[in-house]
Amino acid sequence: MSQTLHPRGVFSAALTPLDADLMPDNARFVAHCLRLLKEGCDGIAMLGTTGEANSFSLDERKGLLEAAIQGGVKPDQLLPGTGVAALTETVALTKHALSHGVNTVVMLPPFYYKGVSDDGLFASYSEVIQRVGDAKLRVVLYHIPQMTSLPLSFALIARLRAAYPGVFCGIKDSAGDFANMQGLVKEFPGLAVLAGADPLLLPLLREGGAGCITATSNLVAADLAFVFHNFDKPEKAAEVDAAQARIVAARNRASRFAQMPSLKVMLAAKLGDQNWTRLRPPQLPLNAEETAALLAS
Amino acid sequence: MSQTLHPRGVFSAALTPLDADLMPDNARFVAHCLRLLKEGCDGIAMLGTTGEANSFSLDERKGLLEAAIQGGVKPDQLLPGTGVAALTETVALTKHALSHGVNTVVMLPPFYYKGVSDDGLFASYSEVIQRVGDAKLRVVLYHIPQMTSLPLSFALIARLRAAYPGVFCGIKDSAGDFANMQGLVKEFPGLAVLAGADPLLLPLLREGGAGCITATSNLVAADLAFVFHNFDKPEKAAEVDAAQARIVAARNRASRFAQMPSLKVMLAAKLGDQNWTRLRPPQLPLNAEETAALLAS
Repeated sequence: MSQTLHPRGVFSAALTPLDADLMPDNARFVAHCLRLLKEGCDGIAMLGTTGEANSFSLDERKGLLEAAIQGGVKPDQLLPGTGVAALTETVALTKHALSHGVNTVVMLPPFYYKGVSDDGLFASYSEVIQRVGDAKLRVVLYHIPQMTSLPLSFALIARLRAAYPGVFCGIKDSAGDFANMQGLVKEFPGLAVLAGADPLLLPLLREGGAGCITATSNLVAADLAFVFHNFDKPEKAAEVDAAQARIVAARNRASRFAQMPSLKVMLAAKLGDQNWTRLRPPQLPLNAEETAALLAS
Repeated sequence: MSQTLHPRGVFSAALTPLDADLMPDNARFVAHCLRLLKEGCDGIAMLGTTGEANSFSLDERKGLLEAAIQGGVKPDQLLPGTGVAALTETVALTKHALSHGVNTVVMLPPFYYKGVSDDGLFASYSEVIQRVGDAKLRVVLYHIPQMTSLPLSFALIARLRAAYPGVFCGIKDSAGDFANMQGLVKEFPGLAVLAGADPLLLPLLREGGAGCITATSNLVAADLAFVFHNFDKPEKAAEVDAAQARIVAARNRASRFAQMPSLKVMLAAKLGDQNWTRLRPPQLPLNAEETAALLAS
């Protein structure tokens, strides 16, 4: 794996805690980010799908980013999601990140309209880059067709990388198809391919991938960090296998019921803090039976 | 058809003109709204799918609504779309409309997440109603699963209408399945069922539907208004059939290529104003060949 890939490492798709009024709880969020970094994460991919970002207003999103930085997370440790449905809001969120020293963002395609052509997606990303107009900007594309119905094709990626050299530095592949990640690594040397599912970090590193942006990292960051730093050391093979087994087990446990509320229940239990169990509609907390079954497992 | 249905009539899913920088052209928009009303529309369903609403920022959306009112469109002639992905922004847009005397809005479900349960959608709409907290609010549900992947089930509609009597007054059904519209009329007396496709206005009126919110109305508003006012008059049958034939022809013409850019090309030609042909990414204008073929047809 090239040491020049950026971003590279284990990035947590951080959960977002909510207060009793279902507003982002910035203080708890900052404490969570600092804990994840202490556990070994290379950075925080805040405001992604797992972080309920698209249920938050622009101001709520900006507030979380500012709180993280004011709370001691370094700007280069943050990979905020800034891609929303409206072009001008994607531009505004991306400029806001840059204005706080955060140069690398994760960008969804504009996800309301369906059946959008590669030309339409290219035009959208192009407009964003041009309107942001900042040579420091680095973009991690976000491939999650199960939410967007807008897969990011190899042809589109090639075209974006050719048109804006150096800007489209990575891709978070959350489609769950390992063959696609392998194909990305092979087709695009220099592109940081990041697994969107925790169990795929290890096999993807072996293929030359750059790391992961994942949800179960909220619970097993130390194991993911261990895998990342030791996957290629034969003398650590047994420990890597053990860490990987814990990662897979946590992921499976979080997938028995809906994933986001399950992760919040598991984190609440780990921290002894029931405030973590809240979600903003349309996401809902697990019911009492599901919670009991999950915690008993 | 009950005369008490609200909203009732022909509502244009108005196109939104853009300036050379692809920003909403408020002045051209107001002129278009006034023209549509003069042609016979009962109101303007602004900021819907056809209006590219989800490509605009909150401020751009608010600016268009304020411009329409300042330009002479009466607040009770407006049915703005206010449903977006983020709960607090849906609340903000709905409150903004109410603050300008616009009491009836069209509300998408929160459309980023997929596989959302009826419980999740109920919780989302409930939170919006409670947070808006205004007894004047009337909501037209927006059923467009081809964009949202979140169909609005009869069970959900029944539950919302029972929990908030009088609030959920109508539904725009854009799924294109006439049987679903028939079922809605039959299942929910007092619910204003509005066809989302122009050719379905006439058959839906015959079933007891309330009218339409449609895209081709940007071009054939007078024909739609004629159908609405005369569909049940035997002495007008021939004229209704002729108007319906023109509606179907316009819709078919606009469906040969992508619908939104086609409608903009056709409107630009009708008005002799090429400014109308712009779209904001990810939507793209027709290319030169498509434009020529469409205009020759």
